[in-house]
Amino acid sequence: MIKFKVPATSANVGPGFDCFGLAYSFYNEYQVEKADKMLIEGCDPAHTTKDNIFNVAFNETMKKLKKKGSFHVYYKPAIPSSRGLGSSASVIVAGCKTANILYGGIKKLSDDEIFQIASKIEGHPDNVAPAIFGGLTASTKLNSGKFFHKKYKVSNKLYFSVLIPNFKTSTEMARKLLPKSYKKEEAVAMLSHSVLMVEALQSGNFDLLKTVCKDYIHEPYRKKLIKDYDYIKKTVEKNGDAVLLISGSGPTLLVISNNKNFSKKLKLKGTKALWLVKPLKVLK
Amino acid sequence: MIKFKVPATSANVGPGFDCFGLAYSFYNEYQVEKADKMLIEGCDPAHTTKDNIFNVAFNETMKKLKKKGSFHVYYKPAIPSSRGLGSSASVIVAGCKTANILYGGIKKLSDDEIFQIASKIEGHPDNVAPAIFGGLTASTKLNSGKFFHKKYKVSNKLYFSVLIPNFKTSTEMARKLLPKSYKKEEAVAMLSHSVLMVEALQSGNFDLLKTVCKDYIHEPYRKKLIKDYDYIKKTVEKNGDAVLLISGSGPTLLVISNNKNFSKKLKLKGTKALWLVKPLKVLK
Repeated sequence: MIKFKVPATSANVGPGFDCFGLAYSFYNEYQVEKADKMLIEGCDPAHTTKDNIFNVAFNETMKKLKKKGSFHVYYKPAIPSSRGLGSSASVIVAGCKTANILYGGIKKLSDDEIFQIASKIEGHPDNVAPAIFGGLTASTKLNSGKFFHKKYKVSNKLYFSVLIPNFKTSTEMARKLLPKSYKKEEAVAMLSHSVLMVEALQSGNFDLLKTVCKDYIHEPYRKKLIKDYDYIKKTVEKNGDAVLLISGSGPTLLVISNNKNFSKKLKLKGTKALWLVKPLKVLK
Repeated sequence: MIKFKVPATSANVGPGFDCFGLAYSFYNEYQVEKADKMLIEGCDPAHTTKDNIFNVAFNETMKKLKKKGSFHVYYKPAIPSSRGLGSSASVIVAGCKTANILYGGIKKLSDDEIFQIASKIEGHPDNVAPAIFGGLTASTKLNSGKFFHKKYKVSNKLYFSVLIPNFKTSTEMARKLLPKSYKKEEAVAMLSHSVLMVEALQSGNFDLLKTVCKDYIHEPYRKKLIKDYDYIKKTVEKNGDAVLLISGSGPTLLVISNNKNFSKKLKLKGTKALWLVKPLKVLK
């Protein structure tokens, strides 16, 4: 058995809809070995069939490697699904890595080659990029059809935590809630917000972060799917030392603070949903 | 007489509408001295009256310095006006610098203090930031009301030139042409384009640049004000070694190439307007 892990990720990160991703010190751990026949164990039985994304990703990678063979994987997911924490990207990247580790031999695929395969399967690179490369990433599809990513280091003056609720939302529903168009002023504000969000996260400039983390693209629409969002937003941001963003398409919420002890002190008494407050490090 | 110079600048730079600016090795030179009474010479007589932005900028800076006095300035503008090359930002910054140089003594204002004054007068920081700090800049107004800028170095693998036509356009007219809203797909694409435009210009990755320089916010609308825009765009981009963007609100066009000799070889025979092809260096 070979062990490896793939992290949870947040896509979007405020103003970087369909662009930014963050990888956290919060992982699914996979144990894999060569086998004659596919066997997926440990997780929900619904995710153990041949059409599962782990197996799809494994097979696509085997094609690229020009190898034949199968696998046995055991994993008990730590990253909850349908919560906006990149659980599907983690599983896809794990399927690719399994093929590469077990069958890549001395001609293993590079991280960028795995990034290409996994982004194609996932349909977009936002979660796949940080799951593979760590840190904060910005990614897009080039005119050539290739996926591109850029990784940035995040300042250690910022403290991250996620609030994971005991309910799920569907990405499809969250996509449908978005409007067909945006006001000029909103679309234009997003340009400087997204560009300078990188600077805010790299430098830890919290005044800048508070201005530029404001999103007009998805958060105003998706918050409807998240129970007690307005209460939680107000509570988290009331002292001016933290901002609340939606992780991916939600319902997990991402808190960024300049106060080391913020997540320890956070009390969410005004919501009936259960929220797990989980402090995390952004991966280097 | 004290001499100093302030550069021409391009705002917007493709996907960075109301955010990016570039400063060039192309300057207005100013000669200034203390005087009892304001005197502006050398330029168009229409720009020598008390309500001129040079004098406004001088006076605002004197207020900040808590000093009294006036000036004599001589400048023959090299940067043409109403062409999208930041001529007004250059004059405003020059007015601020004149006060600072002549009356700042040992307590001169910092570049950031001048940036605050000049951005307020200009109404936005896009051209003022590169005119003061050089390079590529991203700028915005923070929630606190202060203006913020971040400077980036531009790769020396990229070659810049501007095509300056013999006609003018008004910024006001160019603003009016913009639509009131944008399609979701357009607004969303701009986020990764603007973020990764910084990376493309910093790294000189020309494939990335070709994908992300695509703008949906202003260029499709403002091109109507620019004679033979479609012909020039096609001619510049036909060999895949250059991209054409609108400098500021136009009509000057900005060419970025990965071919050192691009601007020397460029022939624009299919346009009746006169276009001055001016190769420039981006300031460090």
